[in-house]
Amino acid sequence: MTKSAADIWSELAALPQPTLLELFSASRDGGEGADEPGGKDRVAMLSGRIELAGEAKGDPMAPGGILFDWSKTHLDRAVLGKFAELAETMDFAEMRAKLFAGEVVNPTEGRAADHATLRGVGDEAKVEEAAALIDRMGMLVEAIHQGAFGEIEHLIHIGIGGSALGPALGVDALAREFARCDVHVVSNIDGVALEAAFAKCDPAKTLIAVASKTFTTIETMTNAASALKWLGENGVSDPGGRVVALTANPEGAVEWGVDETRILPFQESVGGRYSIWSSIGFPIAMAVGMDEFREMLAGAAEVDAHFRDRGVEDNLVLRAAFADLYYTRVRGCQTRAVFAYDERLGLFPDYLQQLEMESNGKRVTADMQPVDGPTAPITWGGVGTDAQHAVFQLLHQGTHLIPVDFIASIAPGDELDPAHHRILLMNCFAQGAALMAGKKGKDPARNYPGDRPSATILCDDLDAATLGALIAFHEHRTFANAVLMGINPFDQFGVELGKQMAKAIEQGGEEFDASTEELLDAAGLGAG
Amino acid sequence: MTKSAADIWSELAALPQPTLLELFSASRDGGEGADEPGGKDRVAMLSGRIELAGEAKGDPMAPGGILFDWSKTHLDRAVLGKFAELAETMDFAEMRAKLFAGEVVNPTEGRAADHATLRGVGDEAKVEEAAALIDRMGMLVEAIHQGAFGEIEHLIHIGIGGSALGPALGVDALAREFARCDVHVVSNIDGVALEAAFAKCDPAKTLIAVASKTFTTIETMTNAASALKWLGENGVSDPGGRVVALTANPEGAVEWGVDETRILPFQESVGGRYSIWSSIGFPIAMAVGMDEFREMLAGAAEVDAHFRDRGVEDNLVLRAAFADLYYTRVRGCQTRAVFAYDERLGLFPDYLQQLEMESNGKRVTADMQPVDGPTAPITWGGVGTDAQHAVFQLLHQGTHLIPVDFIASIAPGDELDPAHHRILLMNCFAQGAALMAGKKGKDPARNYPGDRPSATILCDDLDAATLGALIAFHEHRTFANAVLMGINPFDQFGVELGKQMAKAIEQGGEEFDASTEELLDAAGLGAG
Repeated sequence: MTKSAADIWSELAALPQPTLLELFSASRDGGEGADEPGGKDRVAMLSGRIELAGEAKGDPMAPGGILFDWSKTHLDRAVLGKFAELAETMDFAEMRAKLFAGEVVNPTEGRAADHATLRGVGDEAKVEEAAALIDRMGMLVEAIHQGAFGEIEHLIHIGIGGSALGPALGVDALAREFARCDVHVVSNIDGVALEAAFAKCDPAKTLIAVASKTFTTIETMTNAASALKWLGENGVSDPGGRVVALTANPEGAVEWGVDETRILPFQESVGGRYSIWSSIGFPIAMAVGMDEFREMLAGAAEVDAHFRDRGVEDNLVLRAAFADLYYTRVRGCQTRAVFAYDERLGLFPDYLQQLEMESNGKRVTADMQPVDGPTAPITWGGVGTDAQHAVFQLLHQGTHLIPVDFIASIAPGDELDPAHHRILLMNCFAQGAALMAGKKGKDPARNYPGDRPSATILCDDLDAATLGALIAFHEHRTFANAVLMGINPFDQFGVELGKQMAKAIEQGGEEFDASTEELLDAAGLGAG
Repeated sequence: MTKSAADIWSELAALPQPTLLELFSASRDGGEGADEPGGKDRVAMLSGRIELAGEAKGDPMAPGGILFDWSKTHLDRAVLGKFAELAETMDFAEMRAKLFAGEVVNPTEGRAADHATLRGVGDEAKVEEAAALIDRMGMLVEAIHQGAFGEIEHLIHIGIGGSALGPALGVDALAREFARCDVHVVSNIDGVALEAAFAKCDPAKTLIAVASKTFTTIETMTNAASALKWLGENGVSDPGGRVVALTANPEGAVEWGVDETRILPFQESVGGRYSIWSSIGFPIAMAVGMDEFREMLAGAAEVDAHFRDRGVEDNLVLRAAFADLYYTRVRGCQTRAVFAYDERLGLFPDYLQQLEMESNGKRVTADMQPVDGPTAPITWGGVGTDAQHAVFQLLHQGTHLIPVDFIASIAPGDELDPAHHRILLMNCFAQGAALMAGKKGKDPARNYPGDRPSATILCDDLDAATLGALIAFHEHRTFANAVLMGINPFDQFGVELGKQMAKAIEQGGEEFDASTEELLDAAGLGAG
């Protein structure tokens, strides 16, 4: 009989907790002097690469990959051993097989989670269906690039949550040097956001993408209506003819008035926060072209294969999840931080916030029991080196333990003096070293306790395949976290109550608490 | 004899912990039915306004102010009473008097913290000095607007940390509708950031602002050099003549080659993260004009007066600090979240991250003892309604308690259909109500535990005076937190070790841990 999860968590909590420097020191091999920093064996054990085949990079000869170094975390053989037991107890292998087989892994909504099929991975029939949808998008992108809508220079992409974060990240990361189309992602219901996009677009050369899985999202439909009004008021004779709909509810889009030829559907079984691979990625394809979009999918597929095929021992995705859970459940960390030492990944922490917090910010298990410990931490972060001048004070000398991920690219994204990129990378590596080592000073205000964990994700280059791989890595990491906690990462009922309350306020007649009533009155929205 | 802080913290921890609904219910006055939500007395006790005089708003007749509603937090008379004792024990009134008198409040660096003098508040001689510096900036701004440098349309502002976050926030919040100058803030050493600014500027019409308190910051000096190179390579005959220096080290700027007439100094006693009011605010003045910049200062001065003059009972800034500390130290919250329901305040959470985490992410007290409890939580957040579709799942149904601040403006920032702003505000208020009330459902996955605290900061309008007031409110809130924890918020030695390590890597010859060595080798930066 396998051990219970509760027993394994107790055993994990009871394990000795050597410091990082002790862990490095213990793994030192014989050849080195006693005073030298050690840890070569440990680094060999806890770092590894995922290769992105040249094919994924659009050039069969192009090498490239990503190094994942988890050695500066508190994982050791004992901790890893316990997590291997936990994976067994939680039927990890079976759940993973279900995910890739297209079986129901979202029991509350009775759905599969088919995002990998868009990358060509999974159930054959579903992969075929997904490929047809992507081909359809490719044809429309091609037609637009070839002038089917006249001269199009700007795309205002309207969507929110999963329908905005992926497109914004993809365009920001991949389309800086050269964009075939100037994309503006608008999400907020605050009209200021839409007006900012208007100010940068020539209505005569602007296309509107309306992205909503249900095609009922109030922010998106309100913004879409205002965007059409703007086109009409600025000389566009058929504003409706400028709309492309990206949705899992094509009937809804038709009803709203979009012509079928301009509707790009995606599968109901692709969740909003996993939809960048689907037609929701349309603005990315518009900006970088369909070939590069497909490279992004291919890069993700390499990670799919790694996650699906590797055992507990050398599965880099699963190992990251082990570390996540160790810090959340054994060390009491309420947050984890992600610092991208790359300006192009400035939106990546935001993207991960949704992916991780909306997926795993839960309090019941998949079989409807209260969870047996804390679930998803708060994901936060920023870009380096900026963050060093803002929040790293707290990382080094604050009282909260915060596991950190650093992400960087060996190849520079700029063509300025190489000093820029060299300083960038040196700072990235120096921060990880400093967090771990700390420093004792005579002056208590200049003391650094050290023993603060970090992982480093070092990409050979930040191209489309690599971006796809990075995102897929975090999708599966989030899934692995969920399976090991026994929760369903694919629903999000927690967002419903706020929507209901907003609707109740809009409709009037209901009495709220005295604070809410005061605020409504102050804003002139009260019943009275 | 006054009680010790440790005793007061113990007493705070031992107080009963009624739920928010119980607190509201207990304060219900007699007139209402038993089933109705109550809490009017409580709202009256825990909310209040700071008025921004018409003068601060550039129009003596313009009313305006900010409502601060802390009623949906777990503060009650018992908790407030204990914190009043703590303020006594920690010599809060004396420390506050020192701050405004320009005495040393940053003992490790032997400095005052004179940012309020830039708002005209504090020691008379220092206020005069500050006013002269602002006048000097005003003259240069005026001269540039009048064509002293030819036709200037773009400003590339180069600075990092405190030299970037304030300018970026000010321009983004205030200069959306109409900007006298197109400002691009560049902070990251990653050359991608600078290249993005280049792509948007005509070198013939571009001015470069170099902002660094010490004028030695490696990111800023490297970016400045590359910006001058770009100007030179693109037809500008005297690139150096296009530089304005914003610094507390004018000699350093002269040495670097900036003409004295284009150096705008600020006081050494103004910290980087408090420097938006000084010449570091130059890009804001360039974008919105000097009058509006002065309105920002005047709005901040109203909060200075409130914070300085009000007692413990009705000091809204201090009350916010009480709530902060209650959640951090009594309820174990490692984070606090800020959601601006206003697109123009999209950068405000980033700004607060630095202000709060760099100030109070400490582990020793001002007299060099280990702190007696957790210090600054992680400040994180985003904009509403976007965040509802990304992270609110965890707020409502996650396992971590997260105190939330909502910030909104009654007057809209847009001129679209009023539905945009109405939906925005209704969602803001609905979220606070939903977090507090929760909801029991039959289905555990649709259960909302509620009792989750939030505060609401509701501005009449988001103009320059209001932005100034919002920032000053948080500066003093951060200071009050520090005083009550006994720490020095004005130094930041925690950022030094990483810089030293980066320098050691650059210089070579030192051996690091095996992980760092591996990363350096992989990136081609290793010694070998």
